[in-house]
Amino acid sequence: MEIKVELTKNPKAKPASENLAFGNIFSDHMFIMDYEEGKGWHNARIVPYGSISYEPAVMVFHYGQAVFEGLKAYKTGNEIVLFRPDENFKRLNNSCDALCIPRIDEAFALEALRKLINIDRDWVPDAPGTSLYIRPFIIATEPHIGVHPSSTYHFIIITGPVGAYYKEGLNPVKIYVESHYVRAVKGGLGESKASANYAASLKAQQMAAKKGYTQVLWLDGVERKYVEEVGTMNVFFVIGDEVVTPALNGSILPGITRKSCIELLRSWGVKVSERRISIQEIYDAADKGLLKEAFGTGTAAVISPIGELCWNDKKLTLGDGKIGELSQKLYDNITGIQYKKLPDPFNWVVKV
Amino acid sequence: MEIKVELTKNPKAKPASENLAFGNIFSDHMFIMDYEEGKGWHNARIVPYGSISYEPAVMVFHYGQAVFEGLKAYKTGNEIVLFRPDENFKRLNNSCDALCIPRIDEAFALEALRKLINIDRDWVPDAPGTSLYIRPFIIATEPHIGVHPSSTYHFIIITGPVGAYYKEGLNPVKIYVESHYVRAVKGGLGESKASANYAASLKAQQMAAKKGYTQVLWLDGVERKYVEEVGTMNVFFVIGDEVVTPALNGSILPGITRKSCIELLRSWGVKVSERRISIQEIYDAADKGLLKEAFGTGTAAVISPIGELCWNDKKLTLGDGKIGELSQKLYDNITGIQYKKLPDPFNWVVKV
Repeated sequence: MEIKVELTKNPKAKPASENLAFGNIFSDHMFIMDYEEGKGWHNARIVPYGSISYEPAVMVFHYGQAVFEGLKAYKTGNEIVLFRPDENFKRLNNSCDALCIPRIDEAFALEALRKLINIDRDWVPDAPGTSLYIRPFIIATEPHIGVHPSSTYHFIIITGPVGAYYKEGLNPVKIYVESHYVRAVKGGLGESKASANYAASLKAQQMAAKKGYTQVLWLDGVERKYVEEVGTMNVFFVIGDEVVTPALNGSILPGITRKSCIELLRSWGVKVSERRISIQEIYDAADKGLLKEAFGTGTAAVISPIGELCWNDKKLTLGDGKIGELSQKLYDNITGIQYKKLPDPFNWVVKV
Repeated sequence: MEIKVELTKNPKAKPASENLAFGNIFSDHMFIMDYEEGKGWHNARIVPYGSISYEPAVMVFHYGQAVFEGLKAYKTGNEIVLFRPDENFKRLNNSCDALCIPRIDEAFALEALRKLINIDRDWVPDAPGTSLYIRPFIIATEPHIGVHPSSTYHFIIITGPVGAYYKEGLNPVKIYVESHYVRAVKGGLGESKASANYAASLKAQQMAAKKGYTQVLWLDGVERKYVEEVGTMNVFFVIGDEVVTPALNGSILPGITRKSCIELLRSWGVKVSERRISIQEIYDAADKGLLKEAFGTGTAAVISPIGELCWNDKKLTLGDGKIGELSQKLYDNITGIQYKKLPDPFNWVVKV
């Protein structure tokens, strides 16, 4: 499929690379493609970033039929690279399946993304730790009241230069273990990157913030015992000489940073278990002096060390306010590969 | 707050009242109000129905922060009336609370709705069984990538003339008892009218349709034993001389038609139990010849009789293809009150 290009006549001023926040600045262009029943995906185009007109009856406003992805482009010398973008488009299609959204052509989506980044290559920042955040998403655009899959969609990719996701940076964050609210349950949308999951996370996050916590640790929705995710990240615990992360059980997002951490750790000879792990086991391990580290993993923050857990008013402190050894090593290696400062033994990095 | 009015210069042709579908035609005008942090809800206005420009980064597209309501206006002689609209705006605010959306002023919202309907009063159809469907909804409009409650919102009301929601009308529908997919679980958004819940229902609905069923009957997400809702409706069973409906347990939508049915039934001296009811109990009651009727309740369909259940390949037929006696009586009484053909002992009907 041809990708039509309309360049902006009013390029925006680019922000200084040093003081970037996250998610509030968007590059000059965006990619859009339309879907219509019977016609399939068509009309692929790169156009100036800007508002789009939608009827107030479009189904995404009413029935939440929306999925997205998040990945980053990194500047390294004169090169711009992506980290495992094929995994993102594969997951996007899995999310589509779960929400009755028509699949996209993954290879074509990557081609479109490359073309978009090349056009906006000056928007990729180069200060340490910065990157171009990429947000592919699909929304239901049929103007219809009545619950059924939409007959029309938009697939859009927007991008923007970003700094660190968490203000805390690599400083350990305080996490509230959530016993009341549930993010997702098996049989629901938890393993999809559906907008619905994030809607379900807002209230718990707000309540935790009021208590002074940065994120919540989600427990399973059935027994309220087993660890699922932390905020919008996957979660890992270092217990003795074992690294433990919850198994993908149907309600947990299959994170690409999660997968990369597991693969890296195993390549280093570290024992990694993907299994069910109860919050009680974490606390017991801490009591016995076996809980060495805990951290979240995600595209936005890469590695986010956990410095404190609070579960039913029982506080558990980890790591004396500093990032753990393994957390730091994972962070250094993943970002090292992403910025091409380290060898890339798994061929994760793809040139734009 | 003043409501500014801009009338359309291009009124649309109104459809014939006799052949209306559901949800595909919109009246000439819509109500909109903006929210901004620090400023509150402001800029209330009635404008021609039409598209609105949104940046692709608006949070509703990514994080599903959206809630809605559904109610109807009925033409009766020269009068137009609403059915319990205060309940809808109360529930809208409850949904807002659950999704960290700022509350609206319920009395003002009703005033705005009245004004909107008066302007579009010729859009209220008058053929038997038709009505003006009303869709108030709130969406997050801050253009920001990053999960947190939006700082800006739109509260919008759109309306449109509708016929019957289900093509089957009052003919009994075939329902697939869903053992795999889960709509909602306690601690999640199930009791809110959040777009997220409907996103979570699409796949199950699609799979059921492929098997020849009109809707699914949702079971609880924890034990997969207890009945929750049917499709987008609440559900009732007549077992012996008792009418049973699942209690509002945190994952069930508190339907206004549900509430009205309970109140009507009790006023007739019928025993109504709001309690936990397992799907096994339904099948056991049928085996013993005690299951007399089953029906869904909702604004769109009012009463939707259930003619067949299918649970793990076990089929259960009800009512010989006809609507049950109590289902018919409820339908006749509720629609009778709505169209002012019967006395309104509870003062449910409100003049526009």
